[in-house]
Amino acid sequence: MKCDIKNKNLRQEGKKRIEWALNRMPVLEQVRMRFAKTKPLKGVTIGACLHVTTETAALALTLKAAGARPSVCASNPLSTQDDVAASLVFDYGIEVFAIKGENTKTYYSHIDSVLKNNPQITLDDGADLISVIHKRARTSKTQRLPWASTEETTTGVIRLKSLEGQGKLLYPIIAVNDAYTKHLFDNRYGTGQSTMDGIVRATNKLIAGTNVVVCGYGWCGKGVSIRAKGLGANVIICEADPLKALEAVMDGFRVLPVKEAAKIGDIFVTVTGDINVISKEDFPLMKDRVLVANAGHFDVEIDIKSLAALATKKKEVKPLVTEYTLKNKKRIYVLGEGRLVNLACAEGHPAEVMDLSFANQALSAEFIAKNHRKLKKKVYKVPDEIDSRVAALKLSSMGIRIDKLTTQQKKYLASWEVGT
Amino acid sequence: MKCDIKNKNLRQEGKKRIEWALNRMPVLEQVRMRFAKTKPLKGVTIGACLHVTTETAALALTLKAAGARPSVCASNPLSTQDDVAASLVFDYGIEVFAIKGENTKTYYSHIDSVLKNNPQITLDDGADLISVIHKRARTSKTQRLPWASTEETTTGVIRLKSLEGQGKLLYPIIAVNDAYTKHLFDNRYGTGQSTMDGIVRATNKLIAGTNVVVCGYGWCGKGVSIRAKGLGANVIICEADPLKALEAVMDGFRVLPVKEAAKIGDIFVTVTGDINVISKEDFPLMKDRVLVANAGHFDVEIDIKSLAALATKKKEVKPLVTEYTLKNKKRIYVLGEGRLVNLACAEGHPAEVMDLSFANQALSAEFIAKNHRKLKKKVYKVPDEIDSRVAALKLSSMGIRIDKLTTQQKKYLASWEVGT
Amino acid sequence: MKCDIKNKNLRQEGKKRIEWALNRMPVLEQVRMRFAKTKPLKGVTIGACLHVTTETAALALTLKAAGARPSVCASNPLSTQDDVAASLVFDYGIEVFAIKGENTKTYYSHIDSVLKNNPQITLDDGADLISVIHKRARTSKTQRLPWASTEETTTGVIRLKSLEGQGKLLYPIIAVNDAYTKHLFDNRYGTGQSTMDGIVRATNKLIAGTNVVVCGYGWCGKGVSIRAKGLGANVIICEADPLKALEAVMDGFRVLPVKEAAKIGDIFVTVTGDINVISKEDFPLMKDRVLVANAGHFDVEIDIKSLAALATKKKEVKPLVTEYTLKNKKRIYVLGEGRLVNLACAEGHPAEVMDLSFANQALSAEFIAKNHRKLKKKVYKVPDEIDSRVAALKLSSMGIRIDKLTTQQKKYLASWEVGT
Amino acid sequence: MKCDIKNKNLRQEGKKRIEWALNRMPVLEQVRMRFAKTKPLKGVTIGACLHVTTETAALALTLKAAGARPSVCASNPLSTQDDVAASLVFDYGIEVFAIKGENTKTYYSHIDSVLKNNPQITLDDGADLISVIHKRARTSKTQRLPWASTEETTTGVIRLKSLEGQGKLLYPIIAVNDAYTKHLFDNRYGTGQSTMDGIVRATNKLIAGTNVVVCGYGWCGKGVSIRAKGLGANVIICEADPLKALEAVMDGFRVLPVKEAAKIGDIFVTVTGDINVISKEDFPLMKDRVLVANAGHFDVEIDIKSLAALATKKKEVKPLVTEYTLKNKKRIYVLGEGRLVNLACAEGHPAEVMDLSFANQALSAEFIAKNHRKLKKKVYKVPDEIDSRVAALKLSSMGIRIDKLTTQQKKYLASWEVGT
Repeated sequence: MKCDIKNKNLRQEGKKRIEWALNRMPVLEQVRMRFAKTKPLKGVTIGACLHVTTETAALALTLKAAGARPSVCASNPLSTQDDVAASLVFDYGIEVFAIKGENTKTYYSHIDSVLKNNPQITLDDGADLISVIHKRARTSKTQRLPWASTEETTTGVIRLKSLEGQGKLLYPIIAVNDAYTKHLFDNRYGTGQSTMDGIVRATNKLIAGTNVVVCGYGWCGKGVSIRAKGLGANVIICEADPLKALEAVMDGFRVLPVKEAAKIGDIFVTVTGDINVISKEDFPLMKDRVLVANAGHFDVEIDIKSLAALATKKKEVKPLVTEYTLKNKKRIYVLGEGRLVNLACAEGHPAEVMDLSFANQALSAEFIAKNHRKLKKKVYKVPDEIDSRVAALKLSSMGIRIDKLTTQQKKYLASWEVGT
Repeated sequence: MKCDIKNKNLRQEGKKRIEWALNRMPVLEQVRMRFAKTKPLKGVTIGACLHVTTETAALALTLKAAGARPSVCASNPLSTQDDVAASLVFDYGIEVFAIKGENTKTYYSHIDSVLKNNPQITLDDGADLISVIHKRARTSKTQRLPWASTEETTTGVIRLKSLEGQGKLLYPIIAVNDAYTKHLFDNRYGTGQSTMDGIVRATNKLIAGTNVVVCGYGWCGKGVSIRAKGLGANVIICEADPLKALEAVMDGFRVLPVKEAAKIGDIFVTVTGDINVISKEDFPLMKDRVLVANAGHFDVEIDIKSLAALATKKKEVKPLVTEYTLKNKKRIYVLGEGRLVNLACAEGHPAEVMDLSFANQALSAEFIAKNHRKLKKKVYKVPDEIDSRVAALKLSSMGIRIDKLTTQQKKYLASWEVGT
Repeated sequence: MKCDIKNKNLRQEGKKRIEWALNRMPVLEQVRMRFAKTKPLKGVTIGACLHVTTETAALALTLKAAGARPSVCASNPLSTQDDVAASLVFDYGIEVFAIKGENTKTYYSHIDSVLKNNPQITLDDGADLISVIHKRARTSKTQRLPWASTEETTTGVIRLKSLEGQGKLLYPIIAVNDAYTKHLFDNRYGTGQSTMDGIVRATNKLIAGTNVVVCGYGWCGKGVSIRAKGLGANVIICEADPLKALEAVMDGFRVLPVKEAAKIGDIFVTVTGDINVISKEDFPLMKDRVLVANAGHFDVEIDIKSLAALATKKKEVKPLVTEYTLKNKKRIYVLGEGRLVNLACAEGHPAEVMDLSFANQALSAEFIAKNHRKLKKKVYKVPDEIDSRVAALKLSSMGIRIDKLTTQQKKYLASWEVGT
Repeated sequence: MKCDIKNKNLRQEGKKRIEWALNRMPVLEQVRMRFAKTKPLKGVTIGACLHVTTETAALALTLKAAGARPSVCASNPLSTQDDVAASLVFDYGIEVFAIKGENTKTYYSHIDSVLKNNPQITLDDGADLISVIHKRARTSKTQRLPWASTEETTTGVIRLKSLEGQGKLLYPIIAVNDAYTKHLFDNRYGTGQSTMDGIVRATNKLIAGTNVVVCGYGWCGKGVSIRAKGLGANVIICEADPLKALEAVMDGFRVLPVKEAAKIGDIFVTVTGDINVISKEDFPLMKDRVLVANAGHFDVEIDIKSLAALATKKKEVKPLVTEYTLKNKKRIYVLGEGRLVNLACAEGHPAEVMDLSFANQALSAEFIAKNHRKLKKKVYKVPDEIDSRVAALKLSSMGIRIDKLTTQQKKYLASWEVGT
């Protein structure tokens, strides 16, 4: 079995944790049980570039149960759980190429290992697999293209729509991120809870009474804001889009430009999908002893290079808490080196959230296997029917019953003649 | 001047109140000032079927300032403010056909009066003008069609998309309801506050500690829920759509079928756009002395006819509060006769909300006048550019500045090659 | 029957409204039913200086049912409901001296009318009866003193404790305000909801997205803050007490001195019990078109005299909304002339809240009748037993069951030897 | 130097973490700087039975700076941070007797070691030192009594007031728990955040959408409830006190007896100070896979012995997560063995909270040293002046300025003659 992992001996701990996650993902479990019978992905090679966590393990097992041959690499150099990687390989027979803390070169060699299998379907979390395929295809005529790929993140979808807009997309994409049961739940509830969890685990700081500055008021930013508020913070939003900024105001938050917020924040969280959101001009404005964290996909949102250049001293005061002292004597604490704080400092999304996202991934893979011949070089959203099915499975797993429309009610909704 | 209103003598009070509203609609004011210079609607006949309130007056004055000839009828028999109607006619020279409490026959004769002007553009709040035009056009070849119409409500847009789906739409529609600055603000913040306001004004009931059952978790239902929660209620959601039901659960609400919620609610609010949401089977399950109100567009959501049939006694205990006593001795209080409680029992949406919605209406009318030749028989959303401009004007009127993306940031967002 | 009221003909409307309130005060109803049997206040003369509302009517009827002879005057010149006064006199045979809008001279003559009955027990809401009795007793040896008095407000209790501290208190006081079931519920939930209700009724302003400045973070201030936040406002607290200020910070609010808050608030609410909280130096700092309201007992918290002196123009733009235009052209809107905005612009506390407060009043009156010989010249809190009984009656009226401690649990709580 | 700790070699990590805490406790720092100059505890022997954490280290250093000779033992067998213990002894020269996971016998031998120093002042967190002293004094005439003791917890204060009520208290107590800046902040904000933190760290469970049952609605229970709600849970309260139960209802929570709540909860938290709050009758009613945790001081609130007797299987599925499988196949997960979940599964109160509590402790020790001759055998609250000073120091450390009352305002508050 091909693999590149940290340590085989971690497999026992990994197995225990994977089992704990499996039990907490009831939607994916129902999908897996059906897949095991119907084998809808029989013989399909799948390449997955995802955070290598217990939940991703559950997805990989679901794909394997469906008859597929999955191989897995990391979508972030810091997010791999080495024990899970070990168990996937040695307990479950799934190829994994991922080591926590791998450098950029190793990171890309792992992507390469996955692509060598010539996957018919790829699953991405940040569009790195898709990017590499596209880059290579420009220079190499022999690069095989997948039937289609799925993409899990807002950041990735933005990149892919940009490709599509430029007419450079080479094959179809399913934007799993855009499923209602993904972005409303994963981005909002998952990122919201786990981001604040990461900050608290790294620092044990009391959030009540602090000024928390959230840069970005998309679905993730809304999630972080509502959780920070729920912990008693006074939340300040920075936004460049007037629609989102206005929504933040109406939701009761203060909205300020980053430069103004820099002066009053105690904790800063970037979650925009853009670059240099907190920049070299902002750091000198900050108060002493602020915390700075990133919850966006890439570690580009905080300009740490400039911060390091500005600092007269740098030290790690706690694991994953780096203190930068500026000329003005003020200290800035960067969490998790500016990488995704919920993965670097906590355990990422809870299994319950990934359950929904990964049920979408699994059902989208099935959809691709069935329908790839009809798909065009476009970014598709997850079919509504899959989205609704995921929600209904989740409600039933929680024991929650909902109303059904009567025939009369359906007819009324479909009619246009009934009036005042 | 043609008109049909309650009482000319109310004009003075109406004028005072219109002035108060004008001052509270800064976005529309900026639009009006530009329109007054550029006259983009010069000579255009406009028919508006809207709630005749102070805010609608501000919109009508904006259209008139643009050079149009507007005439106005009510979109709900109970929502007309008779003093505003009087002032619009006699202070501002705008045709109005609307009397609070008019019967159905008069209601439709008023629609007729507006259509007699053969409007080139119509503005609707519930699609009644559009419906009448469509019904007539089927039987009469001489019925003139407008260039295009706008529609303000979720309910109306559902009806029109149904028409479009059946291939029966006769001319273009701009779904103002679907503008971000409309449905996120009007539906959520406007309906949310004013619905609870209507309930409190009608009853002066303490909301804290009550069980409030909200039927429907669309934008309006979310608004009502968050405001009821904000007033200290324990909120229960009823939904038929699994996606919305799941969102309600994740937002911390209990989700129950109507029949279960009927047994524990103290206050019921329907806001679904559908019929018989609270039906004859639900009333006998309710506790003694519950309040039942509707915040959906039409008065069909609560099956009041069945309630009346079930009741052994009916009396008005306060203005707009009707007590029905059932055989089991329990008393059910229906607010505002099951019509829109925020208009029947309070003053409808605050001016600040209507400012955004009506700026969209005014700018959409301008858009129609310029572009109607290019539009097809479709339901269009408001152009993004208009939507963003409305948000930016609103932020600037509040003195709120936001960030601008740097060139580097724009480039990053547009690129797809930057990666891990 | 002695009385001084506005208009006997209003009695029918008043009776209907009193009945509506009676039905909504289940705790007081249970007390009233017991009192009607046991007559614990037989022959006792009671003077009540309270807001003359439907709920006060329910209290007066409870005292009468107990065998007492109550007479009632207003505790605020603007808060009298003239129809209730009429019905109390002519339907229920209770002396009332109160006319909405009465001037100060009439106000005090009404207090005088009540005191002429030489009440054995007085009930106060702001300590005006008690103050007059104390002032007279200093100059007149013939002034009869009551057995004891109750006081309903924070403001009043502060004044009375000041008297007690100076050794000048002439007879015992029961501080009904300090009952848990009074101040936690009336001050917080009652004042909270009804204050925001008054502001919305007076202006129909959208609260979401506004900066609401609450001066005072006592129980009432907490109630106003949580309701303003619940309506989507960004709330700013002004406080002089470091303990309360710190609590506000930890609750997620911004805390600023009044002078700083003056520059950014959209809506100001004073609720401190102190004088000139918003003073002549603050008005010129305010933005254009702000709203200023008071929710404290006396109309001294906003320095309206100074505002009038600063203004170049003053007009009433809506009922109970007075516009003051300053030299800097900015406009300040004062609601309800700076008197209690929940009574001036809305209907005061909901019946459900007054139910608890007035059950405490009624049970305290019973307590005084039984125990007055043992009481000293002190400010007493309501006996715990009464407080708990009121809460238990309320829960049972809501159909809520709670746990009972087991014998083992009671024993454990009472012990001190069980340890780690 | 006398000590009993786990491992001297852990001192380096402990020192780093103590320094991190010192920097985050600005109030205690100001106290420490003053103490270092004035030496108010010169020569005083102090015994402290507290959770041996970084924050307790900061308190111990403050006492030492004041000239005292402190010795420290643990107030809970599971809460000791062994690295902190090592650093306190070997870097700072303070006696410590505490080892994480020590058994009951060792636990009490450590208390004994502290008492051998015959402390003049003791500091307690659960009243174990005080209890031992009282027990011994009953049998031994030679047992030396301290001047006075402080007590940090609600549980401890209840026990001590019970002693006082029985006339068995042997010397004065300062109930630090009852300081406003302790119980409002530590109990509510500290316990609230850290309890939910402990649950999330132990399980990484998504809280949004779950039913969280909180047993006890005192200050701690309120804190847990508001944080659970802030994380998106639907919160259910169990209470035996009608006043607290009613407050919970009015705060928007469902209130149910434990037996009803047992059927619907997903997560249970006990925080009552009482015994067997979740009892053997409740476990069989629970759903499959629920989490059960305790946030009360002692591990008696969940009847784990009965649970173990009911279970057919027991295993540790993750560190500090024990799975009990019942006969009905349902699985119950107990966190941290039913001990304080915020200490067992997370890091206890954040330093910012302990800063306030321990500033009260330090200033109370100073107060005892100065005033012990005047104190009686009573449970005293912390003097108001200390309480206010702590709050003011905290506000100033946050850069927050507040209003000062004017002379006129102070006079008004103190007067009783100003009226309507």
